[in-house]
Amino acid sequence: MPVTTIGLDADDTLWHNESLFRLTQERFCELLADTAEAGVAMTRLAEVESRNLRLYGYGVKGFTLSMLETAMEMTGGEPPGHVIREILAAGREMLAYPVEPLSGVDEALHALSETYRLVLITKGDLLHQEQKLAASGLGDLFAAVEIVSEKDASTYERVFARHGTGAAEAVMAGNSMRSDVLPALQAGAYAAYVPYPLVWAHEVAEAPEGEPRFAELSTIADLPAWVRSL
Amino acid sequence: MPVTTIGLDADDTLWHNESLFRLTQERFCELLADTAEAGVAMTRLAEVESRNLRLYGYGVKGFTLSMLETAMEMTGGEPPGHVIREILAAGREMLAYPVEPLSGVDEALHALSETYRLVLITKGDLLHQEQKLAASGLGDLFAAVEIVSEKDASTYERVFARHGTGAAEAVMAGNSMRSDVLPALQAGAYAAYVPYPLVWAHEVAEAPEGEPRFAELSTIADLPAWVRSL
Repeated sequence: MPVTTIGLDADDTLWHNESLFRLTQERFCELLADTAEAGVAMTRLAEVESRNLRLYGYGVKGFTLSMLETAMEMTGGEPPGHVIREILAAGREMLAYPVEPLSGVDEALHALSETYRLVLITKGDLLHQEQKLAASGLGDLFAAVEIVSEKDASTYERVFARHGTGAAEAVMAGNSMRSDVLPALQAGAYAAYVPYPLVWAHEVAEAPEGEPRFAELSTIADLPAWVRSL
Repeated sequence: MPVTTIGLDADDTLWHNESLFRLTQERFCELLADTAEAGVAMTRLAEVESRNLRLYGYGVKGFTLSMLETAMEMTGGEPPGHVIREILAAGREMLAYPVEPLSGVDEALHALSETYRLVLITKGDLLHQEQKLAASGLGDLFAAVEIVSEKDASTYERVFARHGTGAAEAVMAGNSMRSDVLPALQAGAYAAYVPYPLVWAHEVAEAPEGEPRFAELSTIADLPAWVRSL
């Protein structure tokens, strides 16, 4: 069946994201260095984030609130003022951080957009994701943008039905096995896994085995050739 | 031209929202009662919210971060621990607050959904708005849900083109003159203003004059009859 539509993840597929979270986590651990070893603060923060995911969803604002909550717990409910100030500032800096496409993204998307309909499919804070897309300069290459609260098979069915010719004629490409690859395959789409050096523990999953509609690509630069070969 | 599609705002049109923000603001002012009079805290918070709107967008998470920032400013950067704890708790409670449709909403939407395609069009936190819609029990009445970062004329053009037969054959109904009524009229749609007793200062605007495609309704119960009269 011919491919008509390419879904692309955004964070860590088109531009850096996890590295910025990691830098902020390190900054958070340094802030609490008097209270706990870095490893302890990191673990506590991950626990609080995970616990809050259902309430806050994905994105920087929820992450900032989770850092504050962790700081409260780790200081017996009396964090020094500068800790609060630094956490609020870190969140603001993440939201305002300059966005630059990863190497090869610009060329791959230009090549793909000549033949296929490109759809951005991403989780995160609505406004922030829109702002990052605008700042990336890639916005005009996309026929549609879908910012979603969760990426499961029904999400991909709905999005590819709405913006393309159905999941069977669509490719999803992204850096998360759990959010981009597996549910897209489940929906009947093709899926390309384009790893990023860092991956959030929440997004880790096993690669599918013996799945002809799946490919692992070492770089997004290989995406146009793979899509043409389908 | 026949109307095919009805756009509906969510917060304070389908269920209470501003009243919950007001209650939380009052709680915030009480928390800072030792530091400043209630009027001062309220004003400072509104200033911080307004300044942060471009970065945080609409919704409870950004509001919580703005309360924390205001508390920092008002306590010389050293807020007591219980103030931080109470603000974080207030944000969580807002996100988990039970949702109940306003009086007349259920009947009006059931009546409209028999003839027209209903589209929910709302600002706010993506996940939270989806959760509120699910909790309201109204989700099945909507053919589509669009959670947007801003409501301007181009938003309504895009949404009514995607989910209906264009803005000229659509009605937008909501409690905000600024976000629901004026931009929808500008896009070429009909618009019904259904006031809620409280309105966020940010959403205040003058009613349009001599506009045949506009109506002010005293309750959403009057919406089906008005739409049928068009």
